[in-house]
Amino acid sequence: MKDIKQYIEENKERFLEELFELIRIPSISSDSARKGDMLRASEKWKQILLDAGADRAEVMETKGHPVVFGEKKISDDAPTVLVYGHTDVMPVDPLELWNSDPFEPVIKDGKIWARGADDDKGQAFMHAKAFEYLVKTNQLHCNVKFLIEGEEEIGSENLPEFCENNKELLKADVILVSDTTMLAPETPSITSGLRGLAYWQVDVTGPNRDLHSGMFGGAVANPINVLSKMIGGLLDENGKVTVPGFYDDVLEVSTEERELMGRAPFNVEKYKKSIGVEALQGEAGFTSQERTGIRPSFDVCGIWGGYTGEGAKTVLPSKAHAKVSSRLVPHQDHHKIARQFKEYFESIAPEAVKVEVSVLHGGQAYVCPIDIPAYKAAEKAYQESYGIRPVPVRSGGSIPIISTFEQILGIKSVLMGFGLESDAIHSPNENFPLEQFYKGIETIPYFYKYFAAQ
Amino acid sequence: MKDIKQYIEENKERFLEELFELIRIPSISSDSARKGDMLRASEKWKQILLDAGADRAEVMETKGHPVVFGEKKISDDAPTVLVYGHTDVMPVDPLELWNSDPFEPVIKDGKIWARGADDDKGQAFMHAKAFEYLVKTNQLHCNVKFLIEGEEEIGSENLPEFCENNKELLKADVILVSDTTMLAPETPSITSGLRGLAYWQVDVTGPNRDLHSGMFGGAVANPINVLSKMIGGLLDENGKVTVPGFYDDVLEVSTEERELMGRAPFNVEKYKKSIGVEALQGEAGFTSQERTGIRPSFDVCGIWGGYTGEGAKTVLPSKAHAKVSSRLVPHQDHHKIARQFKEYFESIAPEAVKVEVSVLHGGQAYVCPIDIPAYKAAEKAYQESYGIRPVPVRSGGSIPIISTFEQILGIKSVLMGFGLESDAIHSPNENFPLEQFYKGIETIPYFYKYFAAQ
Repeated sequence: MKDIKQYIEENKERFLEELFELIRIPSISSDSARKGDMLRASEKWKQILLDAGADRAEVMETKGHPVVFGEKKISDDAPTVLVYGHTDVMPVDPLELWNSDPFEPVIKDGKIWARGADDDKGQAFMHAKAFEYLVKTNQLHCNVKFLIEGEEEIGSENLPEFCENNKELLKADVILVSDTTMLAPETPSITSGLRGLAYWQVDVTGPNRDLHSGMFGGAVANPINVLSKMIGGLLDENGKVTVPGFYDDVLEVSTEERELMGRAPFNVEKYKKSIGVEALQGEAGFTSQERTGIRPSFDVCGIWGGYTGEGAKTVLPSKAHAKVSSRLVPHQDHHKIARQFKEYFESIAPEAVKVEVSVLHGGQAYVCPIDIPAYKAAEKAYQESYGIRPVPVRSGGSIPIISTFEQILGIKSVLMGFGLESDAIHSPNENFPLEQFYKGIETIPYFYKYFAAQ
Repeated sequence: MKDIKQYIEENKERFLEELFELIRIPSISSDSARKGDMLRASEKWKQILLDAGADRAEVMETKGHPVVFGEKKISDDAPTVLVYGHTDVMPVDPLELWNSDPFEPVIKDGKIWARGADDDKGQAFMHAKAFEYLVKTNQLHCNVKFLIEGEEEIGSENLPEFCENNKELLKADVILVSDTTMLAPETPSITSGLRGLAYWQVDVTGPNRDLHSGMFGGAVANPINVLSKMIGGLLDENGKVTVPGFYDDVLEVSTEERELMGRAPFNVEKYKKSIGVEALQGEAGFTSQERTGIRPSFDVCGIWGGYTGEGAKTVLPSKAHAKVSSRLVPHQDHHKIARQFKEYFESIAPEAVKVEVSVLHGGQAYVCPIDIPAYKAAEKAYQESYGIRPVPVRSGGSIPIISTFEQILGIKSVLMGFGLESDAIHSPNENFPLEQFYKGIETIPYFYKYFAAQ
């Protein structure tokens, strides 16, 4: 595969032109007015796969936006790689913060600027071009399947059912995903774990109407006071979640593995400066990286109640609300955690108010053991293209569909991310460095090589 | 004064017609588009006073909405009563909850339904008609002054300066105010105290932007978590405010006086039912009435931060905010309390966030001793019209201007309220029972009689 660099060099302009055609389709899955664009983006992907060398490709219906499936079969004896990506993108508001049209990609400062440049059009498209190279140069020694969905940004709602109904079609030895980041081009990394998620809304109701805080204040429980106290008590002085049983199933990572993880470069001062805080805070006994990587967290995502306008309006409000969430780690089960939290939170409610907890969302954590063949193949691939052995990183984020794949299809995923923290995915001025784009196209064929060789 | 009832009977239709003309002027002081209506309402009041028998009346400018001043002088030897009221009303939103046009009064079920029917057009107008009766029947033995302001509902911002500049003009022996409630027609009461108020906004800033709760959750202090914990700790398990020094100046009411106050009828079950709660909550060692009457309180009036829309959006927000307030009692100084709270709250902020406390508003508490001549005269007046001796009640609410009058003019106020809890002031469908309206007009002349006789 000495010619991969040359292949990229000879085709780089065309790669960009093709990617830009895909980016120009405003496939915002959350916008019901974009249903037609979602279909166009799927049809585009079908064509991309066929052009790249797939035996077949088709747009398949779901209850929501369609899924694109494509494949190339080499041999019954060859291992099968299932590439997962998504063609839908996040909304672009606030539009006035963009320096250029989000759906008209421009190259500037060595980066592609557009919605989807990284997440996930840019990253998924690298797989199409790596595949093209392998096919065109007769170096493909794996069967390849592509699964490109259209609802990742809205929770992959219909993909689990699609998987249930297409287990045979999706059968593979590993799932390959480029939808995450790496630490830096000088420090390549592979995401070896993702946190799970549990998400609730809590509603506290006190009096049946907003009351005069003078006439009633002091004698009637104030829902905001109560909610604050209840939420304030959910983390103890050591930063531990106080819900009984919360840590029961947490996978305790060995001292050895923690030591290995600790070798990933991390500059506390730089980290603090980048987010503008004077000090960090978290669970006692763990480093900042461990707190987001191997430990669960508890965050209030939103809170509201009473008067929030200008100036001083006195009121003893009837209701107070909060959106609260926990990032979970293996082997916490989000259903169990959701139940435990609901039961506990409702149980500590004072008699003077009504407290209702609704479970809004959830996903399981995921871990990719760093000693399985697929991980090893990915490790060697990065080593070959970047010249540095990548470090495994447990990401604090959640991609619920990854654990769903494991549950339904029984297949592990390897998360070969080429995005950078600075790519501003989900934000205005999303971008993707050209160098990462081309490096991704270079790295992926090495994965196939090493994976097929095992 | 045996003829007061007859006078009311003969003129009741005219009284209503005149009041309705005043109510029809939409004098919402907070609405800058209503500046013309505020002036019209003031001009109307000037005419009401002249028609009722004032020697003179005028609309006087302030930096905000005008003040109406009127007077009738009897003799240098007679005591002088200053009647205070306001012609401005609260906004009417949400309009769709009104059963009739808020500015087109209707009589239904024995009540006047309109914005201002009670607060304070209806109640202040009773004084004009009581005054008219005394003048027309030659039974007025006090000098009378009227001060009708236009900014009570927006904090009487310009009235203190008006008082400073017009001390001689406003000189009086007592200020008479009908802008409060009484317990019930079967249980007349006089408000003998008002709570003060301190009001702050607290702003908590964590990271310099909203963060991904997966990538950062657990390692970075969440401003909502922090704010909740800080606010949650402001009331201890006994319902006491934990700000150091908060209770230092609280006037401890004697066991004897508490016993007397405890005689005011209060049905806990009815109270709970009326506001729709299963249980009450407050400072240990005090009854519900004491908690709102003689004890300070701490209420969060509003809270906001992060994602508050539909569904489950994960975010570790940059900021969290709350509007918090304390009702104060004699002799807590609102300036001192404001400072104490700010210092304490900022001092308990963890290093990982920035906490800023802004003082938004404040007012001193007020107490009217129940043994001064003016209070005694009011007591006898209610006794005569209602046939029952009224009980003194410490109201939980605040009318900051009342303590300002005492500070600037050196005059005590007597709060002869005829409103009922059910009058829905500040809410849709404000109303005022006709019986209370006429009973007010009957009671006020008795006050003048007994006050002049002392």
